[in-house]
Amino acid sequence: MAQFFTDMEGVFAHAVRCGLKKEKPDLSLIYVPNAVGSAGVFTRNRFSASSVTYTRKILKSNVIKAMIVNAGNANAGTGQTGEKDTKTMARETAKWLGLNPSQVGVASTGKIGCKMPMDKVVSGIEVLCKGSQEKNGALVAQAILTTDLCQKINWKESKIGKKTIAVAGITKGSGMIAPNMATTLSFVVTNAHIESEDLSVFLKQAIDDSYNMLSVDTDCSTNDMMIIFSTGQYKFERTPENDQLFQTLLTDHCIDLAKQIALDGEGATKCIEVSVEKAASKKDARLVAKQILDSPLVKTAMYGSDPNWGRIIAAAAKNPDVKLNPRKINLFLGPHQVMEAGEPIAFDAAVLKQYLKQSMIHIRLDLNLGHSQAAGWGCDLTERYVEINTEYN
Amino acid sequence: MAQFFTDMEGVFAHAVRCGLKKEKPDLSLIYVPNAVGSAGVFTRNRFSASSVTYTRKILKSNVIKAMIVNAGNANAGTGQTGEKDTKTMARETAKWLGLNPSQVGVASTGKIGCKMPMDKVVSGIEVLCKGSQEKNGALVAQAILTTDLCQKINWKESKIGKKTIAVAGITKGSGMIAPNMATTLSFVVTNAHIESEDLSVFLKQAIDDSYNMLSVDTDCSTNDMMIIFSTGQYKFERTPENDQLFQTLLTDHCIDLAKQIALDGEGATKCIEVSVEKAASKKDARLVAKQILDSPLVKTAMYGSDPNWGRIIAAAAKNPDVKLNPRKINLFLGPHQVMEAGEPIAFDAAVLKQYLKQSMIHIRLDLNLGHSQAAGWGCDLTERYVEINTEYN
Repeated sequence: MAQFFTDMEGVFAHAVRCGLKKEKPDLSLIYVPNAVGSAGVFTRNRFSASSVTYTRKILKSNVIKAMIVNAGNANAGTGQTGEKDTKTMARETAKWLGLNPSQVGVASTGKIGCKMPMDKVVSGIEVLCKGSQEKNGALVAQAILTTDLCQKINWKESKIGKKTIAVAGITKGSGMIAPNMATTLSFVVTNAHIESEDLSVFLKQAIDDSYNMLSVDTDCSTNDMMIIFSTGQYKFERTPENDQLFQTLLTDHCIDLAKQIALDGEGATKCIEVSVEKAASKKDARLVAKQILDSPLVKTAMYGSDPNWGRIIAAAAKNPDVKLNPRKINLFLGPHQVMEAGEPIAFDAAVLKQYLKQSMIHIRLDLNLGHSQAAGWGCDLTERYVEINTEYN
Repeated sequence: MAQFFTDMEGVFAHAVRCGLKKEKPDLSLIYVPNAVGSAGVFTRNRFSASSVTYTRKILKSNVIKAMIVNAGNANAGTGQTGEKDTKTMARETAKWLGLNPSQVGVASTGKIGCKMPMDKVVSGIEVLCKGSQEKNGALVAQAILTTDLCQKINWKESKIGKKTIAVAGITKGSGMIAPNMATTLSFVVTNAHIESEDLSVFLKQAIDDSYNMLSVDTDCSTNDMMIIFSTGQYKFERTPENDQLFQTLLTDHCIDLAKQIALDGEGATKCIEVSVEKAASKKDARLVAKQILDSPLVKTAMYGSDPNWGRIIAAAAKNPDVKLNPRKINLFLGPHQVMEAGEPIAFDAAVLKQYLKQSMIHIRLDLNLGHSQAAGWGCDLTERYVEINTEYN
């Protein structure tokens, strides 16, 4: 089975090193020359990078055919020079590919507040575009990384009507992860023929149930974006049922990528999945799940495999606007119940500690108030997180 | 000059060890037999401890004369048994002091989710109340602590009219610190004659500008409360000017205590003060200050004395509802400006690193949009925070 997004027909990618990182490839091209649709979601951070502002703008009235992506410099907090540099990156890429600059999106990731060494970037773009017919998906999955320890890829398929529809993508992200309408950098392709407007609707829904429920450290990046391209290869009949099948395919794909980010969270030793059930509203369910995932005290307890569940209920309840009745709460760590109707249940600490030593922990909180539920993903907090971010430079 | 709150006339306090902590005193009595006014602010955590629910309720219709305080067990998440135990603590204390149970507040701090060993507590209360005429303020400042490394006390005076008015208090707190209308445990006394209703207004204002602008780790405790007593010793003429003098005295006192909590934050090596100026609204100024203080990436950078100011603006801007124009921002680390009108300013990294090695760091962000400002306090994030909270038991 196919693995990398470039295994899809009509999708090309290549990466080179232009000198933003010390040793590794740092400049990538993703090229879908016959794209019939494109869409994106972006960080809502008010100090967004010029790449975000620029790419969001061109997506409104164009099907983009290519993304030029650099890692090692966020080109954020760089004022008007930064804005000019982003436009130059799009223009240079367009020139070599024979596109209009408004058909080329730009993404940047790395340190904030440093000006881009544009001579290196411009030279790099020329070399890169000479490889525009390459299918180096594996190389690009590496080249977009910053503090990540491993590449993050996913390929998912589903039979929709008579066609096997595929969704494939890459993502990066390890720290500064608390998406707000988007996350990190992610590039996804599908062979389903879906035009931009519909693609955007599918993408937003998928992100709400995946990346927007992901938190490594509550910090929301200035540079987050996810871009999706449709290669236009297969059309499926647009019935509500088929649309739902595609939505599930895309959402599951995004959840899979999001979990990979959580597990590779800076310094993380385990992924934490939180499910909140029977909440009074979807909003409450999402908020409670995030509050638990964001709590440094829950994160450190999980790191220590410590069944100190009091921290979980304290975190769950910290927003006074959430509907919650302490006397109705049931709490489970994996298969082990620790609280029933607000009363603690005696448990075997050794058994629970053993469960918490796994690399995937499941916290389930039943609020017993309504019919809404949500799930989210995060990771533990370790000394290594502090070390990584103390030394980052 | 006086130092401990028991140095004030009419204020008594004593502590004993009843067995909730391994070695140290863990049960305290604060006794103001002739109190003429009392008020409190409490955590807004929805999973609040029964001590919070109980004490908030009795304060509504009573001047309380005493607080019974235990450390080592939060008596939170303990269901109906916990509620009963809180009432027993008040009733037993009242019995020995000859008070009505509704004149005795209860505060608990420690691990969540463990039932109270009430036989030990009830015996302890008897011994404790035999010392109700003691003035062991220093001992009580120790007895209320949990993971704190040092006691937190403050005494402030101000001439109001012809009288020297004093405000004195103790506080505790090191982790699970992100107050929402209150914080941690704090007990304050004043010799000004102010009745409960007015005292409550002064206290709320003071808390808004002090404890509510304090964050160690974004986790909001189930047990937070601050209680203030008026001994009724001195009356000052209630003019707007005098009221303002008293407000300033109380607010400054609370800020001083809040800073002590920040500096003793779990694992902290430094206190971070954030000032946000020229915001469009007070709400925005407060939110931006807190976002900076809460950011693990800012906190780790400060720990490493790393002038990576990009993290500060990313954190400042992460809430999309805050009014903020990236092109207008000025940013200062102590006396050193690093950004002007949204453009980075070249700086001497060695000089800045030297500044950031101090134990009190000042971050000043000028939004250049309006006339509102706010200040807040937090601390850095270190490996030690993770160690403390991984091993907590």
